[in-house]
Amino acid sequence: MERNVETFIGCDASYEEAKAVIFGAPFDSTTSFRPGARFGPSAIRHESFGIETYSPYQDKDLTDIRVFDSGDLELCFGLPEMALRDIEERTEEILEGGRLPVMLGGEHLVTLGVVRALAARCPDMHILHFDAHADLRDDYLGARLSHACVMRRCHELLGDGRIHQFGIRSGDREEFRFAAAGHTNLYPFDFQKFPETAQMLADKKVPVYVTIDLDCLDPSCFPGTGTPEAGGVSFNDLLSVIRRLPSLHIVGADINELAPMLDPSGTSTAMACKVLRELLLAIVAKTE
Amino acid sequence: MERNVETFIGCDASYEEAKAVIFGAPFDSTTSFRPGARFGPSAIRHESFGIETYSPYQDKDLTDIRVFDSGDLELCFGLPEMALRDIEERTEEILEGGRLPVMLGGEHLVTLGVVRALAARCPDMHILHFDAHADLRDDYLGARLSHACVMRRCHELLGDGRIHQFGIRSGDREEFRFAAAGHTNLYPFDFQKFPETAQMLADKKVPVYVTIDLDCLDPSCFPGTGTPEAGGVSFNDLLSVIRRLPSLHIVGADINELAPMLDPSGTSTAMACKVLRELLLAIVAKTE
Amino acid sequence: MERNVETFIGCDASYEEAKAVIFGAPFDSTTSFRPGARFGPSAIRHESFGIETYSPYQDKDLTDIRVFDSGDLELCFGLPEMALRDIEERTEEILEGGRLPVMLGGEHLVTLGVVRALAARCPDMHILHFDAHADLRDDYLGARLSHACVMRRCHELLGDGRIHQFGIRSGDREEFRFAAAGHTNLYPFDFQKFPETAQMLADKKVPVYVTIDLDCLDPSCFPGTGTPEAGGVSFNDLLSVIRRLPSLHIVGADINELAPMLDPSGTSTAMACKVLRELLLAIVAKTE
Amino acid sequence: MERNVETFIGCDASYEEAKAVIFGAPFDSTTSFRPGARFGPSAIRHESFGIETYSPYQDKDLTDIRVFDSGDLELCFGLPEMALRDIEERTEEILEGGRLPVMLGGEHLVTLGVVRALAARCPDMHILHFDAHADLRDDYLGARLSHACVMRRCHELLGDGRIHQFGIRSGDREEFRFAAAGHTNLYPFDFQKFPETAQMLADKKVPVYVTIDLDCLDPSCFPGTGTPEAGGVSFNDLLSVIRRLPSLHIVGADINELAPMLDPSGTSTAMACKVLRELLLAIVAKTE
Amino acid sequence: MERNVETFIGCDASYEEAKAVIFGAPFDSTTSFRPGARFGPSAIRHESFGIETYSPYQDKDLTDIRVFDSGDLELCFGLPEMALRDIEERTEEILEGGRLPVMLGGEHLVTLGVVRALAARCPDMHILHFDAHADLRDDYLGARLSHACVMRRCHELLGDGRIHQFGIRSGDREEFRFAAAGHTNLYPFDFQKFPETAQMLADKKVPVYVTIDLDCLDPSCFPGTGTPEAGGVSFNDLLSVIRRLPSLHIVGADINELAPMLDPSGTSTAMACKVLRELLLAIVAKTE
Amino acid sequence: MERNVETFIGCDASYEEAKAVIFGAPFDSTTSFRPGARFGPSAIRHESFGIETYSPYQDKDLTDIRVFDSGDLELCFGLPEMALRDIEERTEEILEGGRLPVMLGGEHLVTLGVVRALAARCPDMHILHFDAHADLRDDYLGARLSHACVMRRCHELLGDGRIHQFGIRSGDREEFRFAAAGHTNLYPFDFQKFPETAQMLADKKVPVYVTIDLDCLDPSCFPGTGTPEAGGVSFNDLLSVIRRLPSLHIVGADINELAPMLDPSGTSTAMACKVLRELLLAIVAKTE
Repeated sequence: MERNVETFIGCDASYEEAKAVIFGAPFDSTTSFRPGARFGPSAIRHESFGIETYSPYQDKDLTDIRVFDSGDLELCFGLPEMALRDIEERTEEILEGGRLPVMLGGEHLVTLGVVRALAARCPDMHILHFDAHADLRDDYLGARLSHACVMRRCHELLGDGRIHQFGIRSGDREEFRFAAAGHTNLYPFDFQKFPETAQMLADKKVPVYVTIDLDCLDPSCFPGTGTPEAGGVSFNDLLSVIRRLPSLHIVGADINELAPMLDPSGTSTAMACKVLRELLLAIVAKTE
Repeated sequence: MERNVETFIGCDASYEEAKAVIFGAPFDSTTSFRPGARFGPSAIRHESFGIETYSPYQDKDLTDIRVFDSGDLELCFGLPEMALRDIEERTEEILEGGRLPVMLGGEHLVTLGVVRALAARCPDMHILHFDAHADLRDDYLGARLSHACVMRRCHELLGDGRIHQFGIRSGDREEFRFAAAGHTNLYPFDFQKFPETAQMLADKKVPVYVTIDLDCLDPSCFPGTGTPEAGGVSFNDLLSVIRRLPSLHIVGADINELAPMLDPSGTSTAMACKVLRELLLAIVAKTE
Repeated sequence: MERNVETFIGCDASYEEAKAVIFGAPFDSTTSFRPGARFGPSAIRHESFGIETYSPYQDKDLTDIRVFDSGDLELCFGLPEMALRDIEERTEEILEGGRLPVMLGGEHLVTLGVVRALAARCPDMHILHFDAHADLRDDYLGARLSHACVMRRCHELLGDGRIHQFGIRSGDREEFRFAAAGHTNLYPFDFQKFPETAQMLADKKVPVYVTIDLDCLDPSCFPGTGTPEAGGVSFNDLLSVIRRLPSLHIVGADINELAPMLDPSGTSTAMACKVLRELLLAIVAKTE
Repeated sequence: MERNVETFIGCDASYEEAKAVIFGAPFDSTTSFRPGARFGPSAIRHESFGIETYSPYQDKDLTDIRVFDSGDLELCFGLPEMALRDIEERTEEILEGGRLPVMLGGEHLVTLGVVRALAARCPDMHILHFDAHADLRDDYLGARLSHACVMRRCHELLGDGRIHQFGIRSGDREEFRFAAAGHTNLYPFDFQKFPETAQMLADKKVPVYVTIDLDCLDPSCFPGTGTPEAGGVSFNDLLSVIRRLPSLHIVGADINELAPMLDPSGTSTAMACKVLRELLLAIVAKTE
Repeated sequence: MERNVETFIGCDASYEEAKAVIFGAPFDSTTSFRPGARFGPSAIRHESFGIETYSPYQDKDLTDIRVFDSGDLELCFGLPEMALRDIEERTEEILEGGRLPVMLGGEHLVTLGVVRALAARCPDMHILHFDAHADLRDDYLGARLSHACVMRRCHELLGDGRIHQFGIRSGDREEFRFAAAGHTNLYPFDFQKFPETAQMLADKKVPVYVTIDLDCLDPSCFPGTGTPEAGGVSFNDLLSVIRRLPSLHIVGADINELAPMLDPSGTSTAMACKVLRELLLAIVAKTE
Repeated sequence: MERNVETFIGCDASYEEAKAVIFGAPFDSTTSFRPGARFGPSAIRHESFGIETYSPYQDKDLTDIRVFDSGDLELCFGLPEMALRDIEERTEEILEGGRLPVMLGGEHLVTLGVVRALAARCPDMHILHFDAHADLRDDYLGARLSHACVMRRCHELLGDGRIHQFGIRSGDREEFRFAAAGHTNLYPFDFQKFPETAQMLADKKVPVYVTIDLDCLDPSCFPGTGTPEAGGVSFNDLLSVIRRLPSLHIVGADINELAPMLDPSGTSTAMACKVLRELLLAIVAKTE
């Protein structure tokens, strides 16, 4: 008798045949406002049976590609550095096998674990960062490993001009000044400047990591997140971005900050599932 | 002492004087994902006291027309065919009296009951179908009477070119191919092509049935439904469609798939009430 | 890379080594009031990580026994007979291997599938039925395969005196008369008469099936069910029953009617997990 | 075509044949903490289809008695005196026809409207008051017509020794002193002293009004109320009280303070339905 | 030891140094549909720690201005006139000190208290009214002090042509006729006509009061309100309005009708916080 | 103008005059299952206006004693050791002034901060521990500062025989063995053995710290906690314990693990308020 295992829909390839590997990073210990992003990965997996494997937007089907869903890591709450090391190790294991890592957060801090592993291999990597919040603080109430500092930590790894931030509409004055000083390219409020950046990165042929904090979406279409910020983008805006990704050299990606406890109608989880489907179809090469 | 009876607001005409008859079809046995559409009709009736009878969009008032709200049918859960027969009979009874049937679902399968009754009388009928999902599967896990198959069953009754689908953004590859093969006119994602279709139907003077799966609306403005699909239309988009209906020969209509258990803030039910008000004002001729 | 698979906590044995097999029957098409029991099995599995594998009540640990959690069946909504056949087949497969079937409902109708398979092999089987509702109707709104009729259908298979009902506090007058006529042994309101029945069944050494409709529990400690009935038993009452099961010849068991959508605080799901742990520890023999 | 009208289950007698009349008083303007009791009556009516008409406790059936459910009054929010007058008038109308008034609140203040009408006809009336709160303040933030003052206002109408309060476990020191001074008979915490009071009232053959603030029940079994107070009675405790009522000369009754918005799992509304069923079966004489 | 007091974020100035004073008016006794706006002020204060003090839209920071948050008034439920007098007195006290009053409702009726105080001092005052509802009824079920009548009462104080209404999409026919007769300037559905009105008021240099019923926003981005009306404006629309306010002579402002109980995901409260921050930054002059 | 500051009801004494000091420790970073206990302290303070200051159980009133509510600490998420140090410092400050510390958690780990400060001053201190969980693990997924280890850490400070645990019904086998080895006095399931322990501690006149994990209560009356465990005690059981505390030499106390996000009906928060009121009345000496 075979076990009917729950994976993200259409991602039931074996590890051996897979081109990409999904893993969950159920961690939210540094969330400063409303926690619960730890439940994001399993909710995405669980609710994915409400969407189809086929995308009428891209006319592609998850059944055409090979993705292995490895389930969730078991991360220690209360010890961010230990959790980041576990994420980094998992990412290295995936990269060693020549596969594409796709992480499901968790709070945004988890991105640092993947970026550490990737930055070691791709020192010329750029980051596409979609978010409502700048995440550029140097510390938050004393903690330097915090969701509010994750892009600042990434900046320390990659240096100036490597992080491209879109949709940002919240932060303290210092964060906006840090970006304005040329450390990152911060495009506030919407994604209008994305096509230019995408073209630039395509021309440069540099490796690109994509991190999508789902709260870049307007709270109307994505209420289920810890720190909702009015004035965000629509699904169609985000879809336009994703549909441009095939022109880039993507080396990894994550989506994060779904907090299912704050999503009583289930629309945010359904949104996350759809974003993940479109993302996978855009960045995982068709297997045959 | 008179009983203070709960009807949809402004729809307290007697059956005899009514031009249109509302009835609820509280059925959702074939819902494959999240059930609860069975509670849609009573929620719409119950919450209708939160809206006004007057529409500033159409400058019309429900108190100017005559609608009889007959309450809900008592349908058997677990026996779709029996439920469909009950709906068909109720529709026939309304049609025999020369009145306009307006059904409140329930899951989308209930539409088939009304369409059966109408197709028998109006073999040249067309269907205007507003939905996020194509609903064109031949069967779903073995069941041919399923919400996911309802338009396929309608197609069997009416034939090619009679079903006009708008807003569709979910389905498996086969469903989109079935439509693309010319069996239905499927306009994906939005309602931009609706005016042309409306003009064509007005010119032909054919009888038209309108079925509005409320999940055609974006989940941001209509979260309370079993299978929310990001990327839908706005209330103003749907309103534009409804305001064109007076130019057509409408022989019946339904709205469906409100699932109040998934609508904790009540906005979806309020939306359904407003859509029903606008729909009634658009398709029921002013009585005096 | 191994997949981190989600099973009920501590039930990660392989099928080959297992003494018992858990499977989910996510079906609720005939639920007449508030649906959602379909989500029971996955919620129990998912939330089981909130409890321990060790029971201080029985001083036993799930890690000491061998249980295979086979995940959920894929059942067709809207076709009860087809769903029951799938359940019956799964049960037969488990029985053929000499293992103990433990089903997670779903609405109570699913019990009929297991009982059909077991009754064919154990014609002298008795049923211990814990429930708020008698479930003895001959039909419900025309349907004979309904949650409200499941014990009546079981009675047709097993005959008079074989079904022992405890905690019953709801039903129509006819159901209570049917029981009073000697067809079943119905002990209303509480479990006070259980020890005598248990002793009788132990003395007779007959095969016994246990079906626990979790709504036998008082809604105060188990609110998350479709049809809550005030005046039920406590967890300690149910625990006392379970702790007597090792003295009986148990051939199968199920728990059912958890509806997670009606359990916003999560206590009902946690209760179901704890009941399942205690049940497994009581009926699955210690492996070494 | 007949309208399928929603009444409390089994209470579909015509006004003419009815022995008792149910009416809703959807008012909660003076609620000082969490409002929403206004939705109590319609929730009770709406959810009553989840219970049976038959009571296995009393072995009686609602189909054996004749009750007219007149629906809800339309009461003005923000004007308590006007609302009370409407309630008083409705009660007088029912009493003039020789029928028994049974009101569904609403906040507890609505009881005053019924008591005014009854006290005018039965100056020797006693009140049985089941509640968590004493409701004996002279005013609340300046308002004398407040839920927190309702028993004080009733005391002004009836005088000392006429109000018997059970289950009281909250109030300010003054309220407890007012009762202790002999103005009311206040039995704190539980219903243990009820049998004696019932016997006394039965012996005296005086007219008795019963007002059940459902928050007398423990919040574990009745969470859905504005001001839950730990340490209350169980359903079985309340049932015991109700089963004694047939020995008394009951001239009217109400249940109040269900707040459905605070009852996400629906158990409180189900409880209210069951209490109403048992109450009706206890106080409305069997018709044949 | 100092108490860590909860104020609206960044509004911890002392009363003496403050240029503006925030106060809450937690009143909703006349709410006719779904109550709970009483909890709006404390929710805004409590959840404000989820937003930043800095606005990237206006490039201003709450730490640059001086605002005293005086907490909530204690208002009597059930006595609207008494509540209005308390609000009027508080407003007068603030005005006497030469400070700007900023009120947090509560239901919309509370606006009348502030307008009474201001109209006495500024007889030439205009009102900018942003709302889904016209609020122009003469009475509502007999009550003249009702949320549904508040602009009618303000009109009685100020006369024709002084009230400018934007976003209105609900009302009975009489309300729209009252406006159309020239009593108020009612611009339905959206804010497109606002710039002209703003220019006119700036040119006239008249005192202006701003009242923002947050249900002017579309329910998609502001579900948490008692009477949601589809077809509203976006946050960016409202932000555009607020960013024009520095050109006007603002004498007071309020935001109202947040009902946190209807906001399970918290996005509506977060929206209210952000609107309040932008409003304060726009109307309170920079202190140094 | 004075600010209307929110404190726990009746606890508005100045720091100088206070005999006891309440402070909140809004921390839950190590919560392994469902987070949200960080919101416990503010919810208790905010909802306390739903209860009275007077206790009819103890016939005492909060207005008779002097308690200073200092609000919440600002604790760093993600750094447990830093949070514990802040709690320890606050406790020391309170103790230096000769006042009684009363902490509101937060997850149970916060207790360690208070115990560290107290153990330094009272090396002969005993702990009364009321909980569903043993909290005796040596580490949890590698973390030694975890809610699941807090009593183990306290044991390291105080040694064998000093910790008395009541109501314990969950833990792994090792935890129960650790206790059984004589390290702590663990009384499983209920509070029946408490009177003996209380008598022993009274006789010894030793300093006693009281830590109440509110999940010792049955989930029926306290659903709003991260890890609910069926089979707990009732409010009356806990009240009996509290009423015995005046006979002991109490040097500090805390209540913890309320998670308001899991308490949609508000009964758990109301319970916590009532427990805190009774606790304060029992352990803070009457001021005059």
